[in-house]
Amino acid sequence: MKIALAQVNSIIGDLEGNVERCLAAVEAARAQGADLVVLPEMTIPGYPPRDILFDGSFITAVEAATTDLAHQVAEGPLVVVGTAMPGGMVAPEHPGLLNAAVMLHAGEVTLVAAKRLLPTYDVFYEARWFTPGAVLPPLDLGGRRMGFLVCEDLWDEGYAFHPPADLLAAGADLLICIAASPFRKGILAQRFYHAHRPHCPLVYVNLTGANDEIIFDGRSFVLDGDGRLLAQLPGFEPAVQVIEFPSAPLSAPPTPAPEAILFQALVLGIRDFVTKNRLGRVTLGLSGGVDSAVVAVLAAEAVGAANVTGLAIPSRYTDPRSTECAHELATTLGIGFEVVDLEPLHAAVETALNDWLGTGVGAENAQARLRMLVLMAYVNRYGGILLNTSNKTELALGYGTLYADLAGTLSPLGDLTKPEVYALATWIQENRGVPIPAFILERPPSAELKPDQVDPFDYPKIAPLLEQLVLENRSNAALRRSEHKRWHMGVILKVSDKAFGTGRLIPITRR
Amino acid sequence: MKIALAQVNSIIGDLEGNVERCLAAVEAARAQGADLVVLPEMTIPGYPPRDILFDGSFITAVEAATTDLAHQVAEGPLVVVGTAMPGGMVAPEHPGLLNAAVMLHAGEVTLVAAKRLLPTYDVFYEARWFTPGAVLPPLDLGGRRMGFLVCEDLWDEGYAFHPPADLLAAGADLLICIAASPFRKGILAQRFYHAHRPHCPLVYVNLTGANDEIIFDGRSFVLDGDGRLLAQLPGFEPAVQVIEFPSAPLSAPPTPAPEAILFQALVLGIRDFVTKNRLGRVTLGLSGGVDSAVVAVLAAEAVGAANVTGLAIPSRYTDPRSTECAHELATTLGIGFEVVDLEPLHAAVETALNDWLGTGVGAENAQARLRMLVLMAYVNRYGGILLNTSNKTELALGYGTLYADLAGTLSPLGDLTKPEVYALATWIQENRGVPIPAFILERPPSAELKPDQVDPFDYPKIAPLLEQLVLENRSNAALRRSEHKRWHMGVILKVSDKAFGTGRLIPITRR
Repeated sequence: MKIALAQVNSIIGDLEGNVERCLAAVEAARAQGADLVVLPEMTIPGYPPRDILFDGSFITAVEAATTDLAHQVAEGPLVVVGTAMPGGMVAPEHPGLLNAAVMLHAGEVTLVAAKRLLPTYDVFYEARWFTPGAVLPPLDLGGRRMGFLVCEDLWDEGYAFHPPADLLAAGADLLICIAASPFRKGILAQRFYHAHRPHCPLVYVNLTGANDEIIFDGRSFVLDGDGRLLAQLPGFEPAVQVIEFPSAPLSAPPTPAPEAILFQALVLGIRDFVTKNRLGRVTLGLSGGVDSAVVAVLAAEAVGAANVTGLAIPSRYTDPRSTECAHELATTLGIGFEVVDLEPLHAAVETALNDWLGTGVGAENAQARLRMLVLMAYVNRYGGILLNTSNKTELALGYGTLYADLAGTLSPLGDLTKPEVYALATWIQENRGVPIPAFILERPPSAELKPDQVDPFDYPKIAPLLEQLVLENRSNAALRRSEHKRWHMGVILKVSDKAFGTGRLIPITRR
Repeated sequence: MKIALAQVNSIIGDLEGNVERCLAAVEAARAQGADLVVLPEMTIPGYPPRDILFDGSFITAVEAATTDLAHQVAEGPLVVVGTAMPGGMVAPEHPGLLNAAVMLHAGEVTLVAAKRLLPTYDVFYEARWFTPGAVLPPLDLGGRRMGFLVCEDLWDEGYAFHPPADLLAAGADLLICIAASPFRKGILAQRFYHAHRPHCPLVYVNLTGANDEIIFDGRSFVLDGDGRLLAQLPGFEPAVQVIEFPSAPLSAPPTPAPEAILFQALVLGIRDFVTKNRLGRVTLGLSGGVDSAVVAVLAAEAVGAANVTGLAIPSRYTDPRSTECAHELATTLGIGFEVVDLEPLHAAVETALNDWLGTGVGAENAQARLRMLVLMAYVNRYGGILLNTSNKTELALGYGTLYADLAGTLSPLGDLTKPEVYALATWIQENRGVPIPAFILERPPSAELKPDQVDPFDYPKIAPLLEQLVLENRSNAALRRSEHKRWHMGVILKVSDKAFGTGRLIPITRR
């Protein structure tokens, strides 16, 4: 029996489009001779639809789309796909849905697995909408006894139930796991670890594509019972590949550098946000600092240089080399570049608000807010969105100004520590053919909002400490004092185990 | 047996302070001769601590604080109080806590109820941290058989388990429910309905005080088995009151106007945000429109007129009566008032950004952003926070400018429709001795960002339609298109069944 792993990039709520994406994958699989095509978790509704799942008319439409797909693949091959379906109301304001794997055969939709372990931590809130599924027996197909799992079902350590063990006890000799597993650094090794634990051949099909904060990396794979890799699909793009058992282990599994994977992840995060929301283009402040340099490179890769504009907005405190470097990088990348002198605006604000500004933080913040105003004027004129260029260390410290450098609808680097941004810049320099001006990499980080200002932090020392506090949901004075700033942030692309965003519910008002 | 209902206002994470608050309430109850003092759900940690509950050292500290309180009340009376305690790890990254009611007696802490029904909808995410408690038998105390419940346990319709029925089956003749039930319009009648369903005398003790979005209204009460009100504590403030059984029904239960309750709720929401975060003061743009007029009144009541400043920032398009009315209202309220002419800043921006601004939305947004800059300059100079003055209808329509009128750390009216804001303004005028200038109430709503501009909406018609869509987690083009703006919002005080904020998880990227 030939099994196709078909990782697709679905769009939340785009039911017709998602059915089309499934059909295209099934067609590609059929061309490769597949008998069974496996598509990821929640492909039909898109993932995560979150509170849209409370809308009963949406569930009805998802069921209709699933049936429609079943009819369209009635001639074969067999298809297993992730979808949502009613599972019985379990509580007030709880829709009690199943996070389902269904088999499409001869026009019929049959439940083959309903997710039993519902992750309800970090960016996962599945207990909000779903009810745990019951144990379903393996299916006899093509001489195999196939047991089906949905994502967290494989991640069963510590849970009271053990879906893989239950399937093995029922005689399964092949496990098929459909997943929508978000990218974060080092996640692939964790997936291999969990996929190997049942010591049974396993097909793992993961979603690809980004939806808001969450980037799905695909990288679907097949392991044999000894945990050897038999197949692995590419990362961060749709792909279809057929596997037959038995199959020889891959002789040289791909092992790209961590920064290479991070680069791909962030590019996909930006691209999908821009394209799925039909935004067209992006604008960013290109200051001559390392953060905005990296965002510019990522954006150009994601949406094409012609759709990116960097604005340099130098003030009386800006080192002339900052703007020169910004210009140089923009030229290298081929992105749009404009320079707006902040001085006339700065002077007008000083005249108008002389009594209030003083020379302290207010005077600095006003400059940063004027820059936002200039950037947003460009966005209003030419469309698209403003990209935020903050990094996670700054966000943890609260070292940023509300409605200023903290502005921006999408934050590509908001989950990277400052040292990680430098490492990514260096990797880009060495591997992407983009010479980043040496001044950008070597200068001390500075907001350039007063004379001779440099960031008052030992980043290599403080960044990992803050990272650990955030990971453990702990806090310190800086984190507590800046919680309200992060509450205000746009969408931060998640690449770590604990990002600022919807995966972190920490009160502002606390002691 | 004399039972004291003791509704307190605890602060999340302020364990020492919360123990002190409990002790003060116990002292007041003792002075009234209480044999048993009942304190609200999660009083010791504060509610909702959310992901702070993932920090194991916090749980250890909460347990120590609970034990400390037990020791301090060892001489009596008996105390029942809500706290968090370990209940056994149930899943990876799941702390498996109990949302517990404990009895403090002779220095010992004894579990009398662990919440069995864990709400996981709207602003509730309890399945994220808690594991459902087991059935515990009623206790024989003072000739009564008392059954204990925690909040949602009473709200059992539709759930598979029925905690009140289980307690009655075990012989309970008095139910004691400790709660942290958020305020929303009409909630008290719902509480009475659910409290009456077991047809058993019931003591309901609810938290008071606001923590970020959520306002707890207190209004603890006692019902007899026929659902008659025997006692009711005041709303929105700490209070202690003793009840004995049997007791005569209240002859005239308090029934304030809905707007009176809303006023109290919003005032508490502002006051607690400002005082618990030690912010000192608030600033708002006082435009001469109805929204900012109402926010000014609420803020003056919440934190004292001396701690409120309204800034009028008229532009070339501002009707002179707008600023006159703003001034008049500020004088009536006794709040600080400043006028900053937008023209020089506006002119400077036009000169600097002439190519981009044009006369469309960009030109309007730049003015709104300059106003934010002026307001934040004042906040930076004098401390405190900016109050947002948006209403829910504008937020639903996306009729507001990012980093401009949508700015502000706290949004008092973000969960009130435009017609509700008018109704509240009228109620204030008639009941709070604050004459609101007639022009503010009678003018057509306008952003005053271009000549003769008025808001292009039939608010009385569109507001309820949008409200219904939001309540049902449904959408329309305006809601979808503006999701990213709401993602960026500060803290919106929740007063309806479905507010924008952490109770609404809707993706931006969708179709």
